[in-house]
Amino acid sequence: MSTMQSVVLRDGKVQLESQEIPKPGLGQVLVKSLACGICGSDLHLAHHTDEIFELYQQLGMLPAELEVKPDIMLGHEFAAEVVEYGPETQAEVPVGTRVTSVPILMSQNGAGIGVTPGIHGAYSEYFLLDEALMLPLPEGVTPQAAAITEPLAVGLHAVNRSDIGKNDVALVAGCGPIGLAVISALCLRGIKHIVASDPQPNAQALAKEFGASVAVNPMETDEVARAAELAGEGRVVIYECAGIRQLLDSFIRRAPQHASLIVTGVHTEPTAVNFAFAMVKEMDIKFTYYYTPEEFSECLQTIARGEVNWKALWTGTVGIDGVPAAFETLTQPNDHIKVIVEPWRSGGLEKAE
Amino acid sequence: MSTMQSVVLRDGKVQLESQEIPKPGLGQVLVKSLACGICGSDLHLAHHTDEIFELYQQLGMLPAELEVKPDIMLGHEFAAEVVEYGPETQAEVPVGTRVTSVPILMSQNGAGIGVTPGIHGAYSEYFLLDEALMLPLPEGVTPQAAAITEPLAVGLHAVNRSDIGKNDVALVAGCGPIGLAVISALCLRGIKHIVASDPQPNAQALAKEFGASVAVNPMETDEVARAAELAGEGRVVIYECAGIRQLLDSFIRRAPQHASLIVTGVHTEPTAVNFAFAMVKEMDIKFTYYYTPEEFSECLQTIARGEVNWKALWTGTVGIDGVPAAFETLTQPNDHIKVIVEPWRSGGLEKAE
Repeated sequence: MSTMQSVVLRDGKVQLESQEIPKPGLGQVLVKSLACGICGSDLHLAHHTDEIFELYQQLGMLPAELEVKPDIMLGHEFAAEVVEYGPETQAEVPVGTRVTSVPILMSQNGAGIGVTPGIHGAYSEYFLLDEALMLPLPEGVTPQAAAITEPLAVGLHAVNRSDIGKNDVALVAGCGPIGLAVISALCLRGIKHIVASDPQPNAQALAKEFGASVAVNPMETDEVARAAELAGEGRVVIYECAGIRQLLDSFIRRAPQHASLIVTGVHTEPTAVNFAFAMVKEMDIKFTYYYTPEEFSECLQTIARGEVNWKALWTGTVGIDGVPAAFETLTQPNDHIKVIVEPWRSGGLEKAE
Repeated sequence: MSTMQSVVLRDGKVQLESQEIPKPGLGQVLVKSLACGICGSDLHLAHHTDEIFELYQQLGMLPAELEVKPDIMLGHEFAAEVVEYGPETQAEVPVGTRVTSVPILMSQNGAGIGVTPGIHGAYSEYFLLDEALMLPLPEGVTPQAAAITEPLAVGLHAVNRSDIGKNDVALVAGCGPIGLAVISALCLRGIKHIVASDPQPNAQALAKEFGASVAVNPMETDEVARAAELAGEGRVVIYECAGIRQLLDSFIRRAPQHASLIVTGVHTEPTAVNFAFAMVKEMDIKFTYYYTPEEFSECLQTIARGEVNWKALWTGTVGIDGVPAAFETLTQPNDHIKVIVEPWRSGGLEKAE
C-alpha cells in the first residue's frame, strides 16, 4: 500500500499517474477518497493553465520565475474515509469513519486541497486532511451527497455576501451546479422572487425544481427586464453563475437602479466594461470565491435534513482511470450537471444511478 | 427684469447667453444665484459632451434620436436668494432669504438642476427650486460656504455607502474637492487611518489639513501597499476620487484581500479590467453618484458648526462672463481646488479672498 493512482494536471494535460501515498504530518489524517465532484473551475484550470498560473504568479501564490510548470493534483469537492491518524491528533472518530472537510490544509499554510501544487486532491485514491477541519458525515448522508456540500457552500456564500432582502428579486444567470446552489440558498433564506436564466431546457427545469419562481431562456427573453418587472420597490440582485465574461458588461448596462451584481463565475481575461452605467445606477459589484467553514457545515446539515434535492445535481459517475476522457467530454456541450469521480474504482463516464 | 445672463453648454462649447427669466410653477420658487461651485463633472461634460449624451440616450435619459443636441445650463453646487414664490407654495421664509437645495426638481419629474437639458442651472442669474427641498442657510453660513455643501454630500455619501469600520484603513486616491470631502466625512465618522494620495504637493498638504493621517505621492510611493501595511486585521477601503480610469484595474490588481473599491470618479469610456484579481480577493466594488437629502442637510449643518474647513477648498472666484475662459483654464493643469461662480457680477477668474 505504498503507491496509489492520482489524477495529475501537467502542462494542461489531465493524466493518471502512480504516486506515493502521502504520510500524515502533525495534526493531519490520511483519508481514502470515496467521491469527488468535477468542478467547472477544474475544467477551466485544465484548459487555461497558463493564464491561471500567470495570475497566481501575479498574486504571489506561485514564484515569479517558474522553471517547470508545477503539477496540480485536482479534486476539492469530496467525501472520504479515515485511514490513519498522524502525530498530535486526537483521533476522536475511529478509522473507517466517513468524513468531509473544507478543502484547505491550515497545517500547510492554508494550502488548497486539489488546487495548490504539491498537495494531493481527492481525484487521488488517498489524500490528507486537517483533523481540526474534518466533519464526520451525518447519519444517512452518502459520500455522493457529501461531495455536493462544497458547491452548495459556494452558492450559500454568494447569497450571504449579496445582502439580499426579502422584497428583492434574485436573477440567477446560469443554472449549472453553482447557479442551482444559489437558488437553493435563496430558498433557504426565504427569497420569494427568483428568476432563473439558462439557454438549456433541462437546466431551466432543474432551476424550477430547486425553487426558481420563473425560468427563462436568455436568448429569447430579456432576463434582466423580467427581474426588474417583478422588483417593484425592491432591488434586483443578479448572480452571475455562467462564467461568461461578456455578461458582466451586459448586466451592468441592463441592470435597473441600485441593482447588485454578484460574480461567482471565474473570469481570468481582461474584460471591457463601461462603468458609467454602474455609476449612474449606483451599483454594487461583489466577487465571491470561497466560503466560511460555518457555511460549509450549514450546507452539510441542509443535505442531512433533506432540504436540498442534491440527487438532482448528480448526473454522472466516473472511475479514476476515466477522468482524463471525462474532462474532454465535459468541455464539449453536454447535459451533465455534476459528475462525481469515484477514485476507488475504474471505469468510464456513466449516467448516475 | 424679464431677461438674464445664463451660461449654456452647446455643442461642447461653454458660452454666455441672454435668456428669459423662468417663471416659477406649482410648488416652485424663483431664486437669484449668489454662488455656485464649478464641479469636475461640469468640466468633464463640457469636454466629453458626445460621449455623455450617448450614455444618457442609452440610459433612456435622452431620446434615442436627437435632431439637435440639447443645451445644458450648468451649475448644481449653489446658494441663492428667494425672489418670488410660485402658485401653491407656503412661502414660509421671506423673499430675500438665503437658501440652498439638493439640485433636483421633484416638480419636474426629478430633473437635475444644472444637468438636465432645458432646466436652468445656477450659473444663470436666476433659476428655479422646489420649495419642499429648499433649506435656508443656517446663521453665519455664507453663500460660498453653502455652495460647498454639495461636494461634501458626495463625499459623505461615498463614505456611508462604503460601510467602513473603525479598524479599517481608508485610501483616498485623488485629493480634489471630492477626495477632500471624503477625508472630511471619514474624520466625522471617526476613522483613524486615512492615507491620502495625490501627485500634487498642495493637494497633499490640504489632505493633511482635512484630517488625512498620511499623504503620499503615488508616483513615488505605492499608496495601496502603504494602506495595506497600516490595515493589520482591518480591511482597506479605496476611494477612487481621481476620475482616472486606468486606476480601476490598477487598484483591483494591487488591493489586498477583502478590500473595497468605492468609485466616485466619472468613467464614461469602456475600461479593461482583469476581474480575476477581484475574484480571488473577494472584493466589493461600489459606485457612487449622488446622495440623499438627509446627507446634504447633514453637510450643511457640519459647515454651520464649523466642523469642516470649507474655506480651504475655496481657491478662486469668477463672474458670470468669466466662466467660458475659466473652463479653459481649469482644464489645463492648475492649482485650483474649487472655483466659485458669482453669477450676479462680471469678472474673470481670480484667487479667492
